[in-house]
Amino acid sequence: MKFKIAVLPGDGIGPEVTAQAIKCLEAVGETFNHQFTFEEAPVGAIAIDQTGDPLPEATLELCKNSDAVLFGAIGDPKYDNDPSAPVRPEQGLLKLRKELGLYTNIRPVKAFPSLIDRSPLRPERIKGTDFTIYRELTGGIYFGEKKLNKEGTVASDLCEYSEAEIERIAHQAFKAARNRRKKLTLIDKANVLETSRLWRKVVTKISESYPEVALDFLFVDNAAMQMILNPSQFDVILTENMFGDIISDEGSVIGGSIGLLASASTGDKHALFEPIHGSFPQAKGLNIANPIASILSAVMLLEHLGLKDEAMALDCAVEIAIKKNIVTPDLQPESKFGTTEVGDQIAELLAING
Amino acid sequence: MKFKIAVLPGDGIGPEVTAQAIKCLEAVGETFNHQFTFEEAPVGAIAIDQTGDPLPEATLELCKNSDAVLFGAIGDPKYDNDPSAPVRPEQGLLKLRKELGLYTNIRPVKAFPSLIDRSPLRPERIKGTDFTIYRELTGGIYFGEKKLNKEGTVASDLCEYSEAEIERIAHQAFKAARNRRKKLTLIDKANVLETSRLWRKVVTKISESYPEVALDFLFVDNAAMQMILNPSQFDVILTENMFGDIISDEGSVIGGSIGLLASASTGDKHALFEPIHGSFPQAKGLNIANPIASILSAVMLLEHLGLKDEAMALDCAVEIAIKKNIVTPDLQPESKFGTTEVGDQIAELLAING
Ligand SMILES: [Mg+2]
Ligand SMILES: [Mg+2]
Repeated sequence: MKFKIAVLPGDGIGPEVTAQAIKCLEAVGETFNHQFTFEEAPVGAIAIDQTGDPLPEATLELCKNSDAVLFGAIGDPKYDNDPSAPVRPEQGLLKLRKELGLYTNIRPVKAFPSLIDRSPLRPERIKGTDFTIYRELTGGIYFGEKKLNKEGTVASDLCEYSEAEIERIAHQAFKAARNRRKKLTLIDKANVLETSRLWRKVVTKISESYPEVALDFLFVDNAAMQMILNPSQFDVILTENMFGDIISDEGSVIGGSIGLLASASTGDKHALFEPIHGSFPQAKGLNIANPIASILSAVMLLEHLGLKDEAMALDCAVEIAIKKNIVTPDLQPESKFGTTEVGDQIAELLAING
Repeated sequence: MKFKIAVLPGDGIGPEVTAQAIKCLEAVGETFNHQFTFEEAPVGAIAIDQTGDPLPEATLELCKNSDAVLFGAIGDPKYDNDPSAPVRPEQGLLKLRKELGLYTNIRPVKAFPSLIDRSPLRPERIKGTDFTIYRELTGGIYFGEKKLNKEGTVASDLCEYSEAEIERIAHQAFKAARNRRKKLTLIDKANVLETSRLWRKVVTKISESYPEVALDFLFVDNAAMQMILNPSQFDVILTENMFGDIISDEGSVIGGSIGLLASASTGDKHALFEPIHGSFPQAKGLNIANPIASILSAVMLLEHLGLKDEAMALDCAVEIAIKKNIVTPDLQPESKFGTTEVGDQIAELLAING
């Protein structure tokens, strides 16, 4: 099959790690006989430098006309440290999400057995952890009406959700759970919040269409505890925007390396795949950045394109590389493998085993 | 000195653990020559059984006319499992907080060296952890206007804060930080929320009156990570109601035993002290409930009354008991010490060392 991938490498280590993901996708193409076309466009600080706009029109058009977006990272210290900067690199990603209608953020968290000692949790707690968080990305209190009275003494933020906003992400999450261990946990605060009660009502109704999936509920404060006490209990987590922000960031550290975590942002028409780590400018050009999060984003991209065997093959290649200690120095201080070498080896493992 | 303490033992294991706290306070009274008068009143399920009201008027009056309230626990399965129950035990505590104007919830978290292996975190992460959370308890999104449209398809919750609500708790937190390691961390989401920006502005202004306290800021999603990665960085945490709910529950599990955690709820006139564990009805009457959280609540009560040496002496007695393994079976499965014995021993240690 033929696929057109928009590549937005962005800033800092973005281009280096994205290059490894492309390398792996090319190996997938050769092994499984698909044709991936990669077309690159600027976003973030580099786009501001080139065009004055963190999301140039041509970049947006490319994304709209591609089968998927492979995204690197965004952010540059020269903008971070300048509060008077009229445009900021991060605006590029926010606008892109909005323009592409990406209302769901998906974040898998998995404990790799050979890396279990890197977890801040005790091995017996983290063992077997393998879950995915579905976070609503465009609604809730982050986007609700904000008010400040004239005197600047009373402020408010409105959290609002509609049935339709909940339904569309709930279907995504139930479908994912159906293909996994068939458990879905809704995180809310339904004992206190009206919006949470609406989430619970809508999700309960939708669950009737997925009888093979077991649905349970957890208050967000309890969820914050369970993430530490017993993270392996989770399969698919579904939650609103702010709870998802907190819980997915909490979940991102329990595995022990943020350099391994991929994510997807999806909507009805488009999808974007990116590592959760940032642009890490200090590591730029040093060939030390961990490319695995970007390669695992490519795994999610393959799944999104319906290429299940291909996704599984690349995922296995990553698992083997980690098991064989073919990793960057962040995971193994004495490692002789740099960003490029890890990418080469995973592409090769894919070709051999694929 | 003379003090009148309102004792509200409540339900489940509440009466057993509260009895040990009273025992210790009596030992403090004898050792330091104070006169504590304890007057008991019903609250929660037992109050419903006796009077039909989870917070009888006489109980409230007693609390208002006492120097402090020592609270046990609330909740009974016979009400939890009956969704049609017109009154619920928990309403007793909510109403009491409101009537007494308790707008701050204070929760200390400390890693006891001899219990470090009970933590779900690796020893090197939890070591040295010793912080206190100041959570705003009566404002924010839990108490804001709730709306549901007629069709039941759009819901909203309003998060609102005023300068005055922030100021009063901020002063409490800064005063606490001044007496501790002189660091205060405000947890917010000021990059997104208007209320958070008001918190940041007001707290920054108040910090000028406490020049010896170092103020820093942490976004709530980052805080949820830091609580796992490096909890010993915190000294005093200050935050709004919902963030405080999530972060303080997350913080409550990192030490490894919820049976050790005390709390205080304070306002301008009144203060209430209680273990954070619940009524744990399964353990009722078995003499196995851990009384330490209740005894540490008594430590906080002594501090509140201005009895610093007395508080420190009781705190030390608890530390010694833990170090000597004078603990209930939840902390030491083969322990021969029950609830009463641990209370006796701590009271005795206080008398010897006080
Ligand atoms: Mg976040
Ligand atoms: Mg809570």
